[in-house]
Amino acid sequence: MNLAELTEYTRHLGTRAKTASALMAKAPAASKSQALKALARRLRDNTPALQIDNARDLERARAAGLAAPMVERLQLSPQTLETCAQGCEQLAAMPDIIGAIQGLQQQPSGIRVGRMRVPIGVFCMVYESRPNVTIEAASLSIKSGNACILRGGSEAMASNQALTALVQQALAEAGLPQDAVQLVQTTDRAAVGQLIAMPECVDLIIPRGGKGLIERISREARVPVIKHLDGNCHIYVDAPCDIAMAVQVADNAKTHKYSPCNASESLLVARPVAAEFLPKIGAIYATKGVEMRACPEALAILGAVTGAKLLPATEQDWSEEYLAPIISVKVLDGVDAAIAHINRYSSHHTDAILTMHHAHAQRFLREVDSASVLVNASTRFADGFEYGLGAEIGISTDKLHARGPVGIEGLTSLKYVVLGEGEIRH
Amino acid sequence: MNLAELTEYTRHLGTRAKTASALMAKAPAASKSQALKALARRLRDNTPALQIDNARDLERARAAGLAAPMVERLQLSPQTLETCAQGCEQLAAMPDIIGAIQGLQQQPSGIRVGRMRVPIGVFCMVYESRPNVTIEAASLSIKSGNACILRGGSEAMASNQALTALVQQALAEAGLPQDAVQLVQTTDRAAVGQLIAMPECVDLIIPRGGKGLIERISREARVPVIKHLDGNCHIYVDAPCDIAMAVQVADNAKTHKYSPCNASESLLVARPVAAEFLPKIGAIYATKGVEMRACPEALAILGAVTGAKLLPATEQDWSEEYLAPIISVKVLDGVDAAIAHINRYSSHHTDAILTMHHAHAQRFLREVDSASVLVNASTRFADGFEYGLGAEIGISTDKLHARGPVGIEGLTSLKYVVLGEGEIRH
Repeated sequence: MNLAELTEYTRHLGTRAKTASALMAKAPAASKSQALKALARRLRDNTPALQIDNARDLERARAAGLAAPMVERLQLSPQTLETCAQGCEQLAAMPDIIGAIQGLQQQPSGIRVGRMRVPIGVFCMVYESRPNVTIEAASLSIKSGNACILRGGSEAMASNQALTALVQQALAEAGLPQDAVQLVQTTDRAAVGQLIAMPECVDLIIPRGGKGLIERISREARVPVIKHLDGNCHIYVDAPCDIAMAVQVADNAKTHKYSPCNASESLLVARPVAAEFLPKIGAIYATKGVEMRACPEALAILGAVTGAKLLPATEQDWSEEYLAPIISVKVLDGVDAAIAHINRYSSHHTDAILTMHHAHAQRFLREVDSASVLVNASTRFADGFEYGLGAEIGISTDKLHARGPVGIEGLTSLKYVVLGEGEIRH
Repeated sequence: MNLAELTEYTRHLGTRAKTASALMAKAPAASKSQALKALARRLRDNTPALQIDNARDLERARAAGLAAPMVERLQLSPQTLETCAQGCEQLAAMPDIIGAIQGLQQQPSGIRVGRMRVPIGVFCMVYESRPNVTIEAASLSIKSGNACILRGGSEAMASNQALTALVQQALAEAGLPQDAVQLVQTTDRAAVGQLIAMPECVDLIIPRGGKGLIERISREARVPVIKHLDGNCHIYVDAPCDIAMAVQVADNAKTHKYSPCNASESLLVARPVAAEFLPKIGAIYATKGVEMRACPEALAILGAVTGAKLLPATEQDWSEEYLAPIISVKVLDGVDAAIAHINRYSSHHTDAILTMHHAHAQRFLREVDSASVLVNASTRFADGFEYGLGAEIGISTDKLHARGPVGIEGLTSLKYVVLGEGEIRH
């Protein structure tokens, strides 16, 4: 496509999405559930066919020399599809929050004022690699009464096209507009540039991918963006705390998985418990091959741990999101110093305190300026499913609109409704 | 100031605000109330002195040949100051919503997950003319636990400086940081350009003023903006409706005041009631000198009204925010046509239906995509005080974060809090 054709194409996508969004906004709860259940059924019925489409993407990716982890993320196994189908069924079974009115209260003038939950309208999701995100985004969009424009990675085009076809069939089966879920059919990157600058058709952009992608979109967007930047998450081990519990949680937060954004990247330890706690967690990290980049005080204690991979921490380490078997370690005075350190270096994603001290827990909860703040639990819990949202379209590190895991509610807003009996303003 | 000095100055403002915001976020409810009550007292005690400062602004404005309505808006009368003082006292008496945790629920893993209301951090307000906005913004900022940077119009500089000094004295009296409310002391417009591009210090921009100002800020901002663009508000007179009530409300919505954004600019009438309703409202508008720009069908009916100022409506009229004694008038089929017309031409600010029909009311409430949707009440009610928000920092025509009148809640967000007993992710 040349630029004029591309402009016409994205405008066409946007206009159709806008029209569909008005129909989705007033769609009955039963129709949305029916579409989600039909989608689950079609995913199961078409699992063999989807394998064939997915194989084309996989083959092309291998031929292009894509790294093995990237190829793996591209795979649409029968198990992945079954998980997607179950996700659709779970969404279908959840109550419909659209149209609910909250806080209706009479004012001195006589009018009753409340707020109604309504869809955002049209969102555009830009993502990479994993084709199952297509189903997650489509199903959340349907449930929340929005229309969406999906822009997956070029490497997953065949899989995404096949999945989107199933979504559109399911929408049609339930009497809903097929344009409620559209896939951008061109791999031209300029299409994204156009979609993020169409405030008359697109209400919200959700980029899911590398930092480069998100920063570029945020810089160029003319519509609001739900941003998810770094997850430089902290575990702070307070004094007093249950040392055995702290060891278990600090282990889980770092080593359960290294690549998720909610894995901990920095371990802060209150001085009074450092001598007892650090050798224990150090021994576990040593066994698992986790490198520790430590402050001088922590280095002195961890030096005695057999097989520990130790390095002195640099200033840069406190800001680093490793996404790897590396953790920075710092000994500090106590809860005040920990809160100050976290508010300075954290990416405001997810931070945890492990403590037995009630007032310390309360202060940490209130004063740490992050989207998720935990007491005595692993940072790995910062996730839409674990938080009971039913599903997750992304995690926001922004402070406005939605903070932390974004589920159905994050794809909606509240408008004011006023019920009167002919009141006028005096 | 040259550019380097200006950059240093705005950075200084931003850094001080950021530091103050951390202290404000954890400030006890009692201290915030104390500051607000102290501010009320100081406003009353200093009313004569404030008149002198304000007189300097008024004199300069008259000498510069500022239009009379602009000079009038600049005035800080004893009555205006008393209203400001009462507003502060009302805010002081309201419950503190900061730190409240909602929806705490246990999840299958054992963790309990809820959301805590927290301040946004630092907001920057850019406004024109009225110096009382300084007190409104400062008092809302204090109550909501934020820090703010205020950038008033150059024409109100002396008044704003005097008011900000009182705010800072009140903060100090309550043991709160004076930097929680800062006034930009330079009239250089480049200062605004710098403040709206400092995401590391400023979390939110609230422009209040003309469309040009808001569009420029939205275009250049690197941080979120609460936008308030046009208020092209509609009154739709449905069939069946209580004609006497409809006449009273349509009169109020247009003629109570012409300049506010929630005044109605367009009157839609269902065909079955047009012949009865239009001559009645037309006679009132004729008496009050309101020009009617009408569709052919409405023109035919209104032609019989004595003294009516009538013009045929052009396509442009349906999108116009007149802020003047002018209203566009259109006859249409019924509720479906009205919803379609409003969703096409409205600025998504405030729209009302006047009806006796339950299902029509429900459909209008759900399907009209505006920040405020009213049944049987004047659009003039779309206002923070009338909605019971206690105060209003602005009205948002955006769909994300805050829609409609923005009060204390709009200056806060919700972060996730997780309470565990050592849970780890499996």
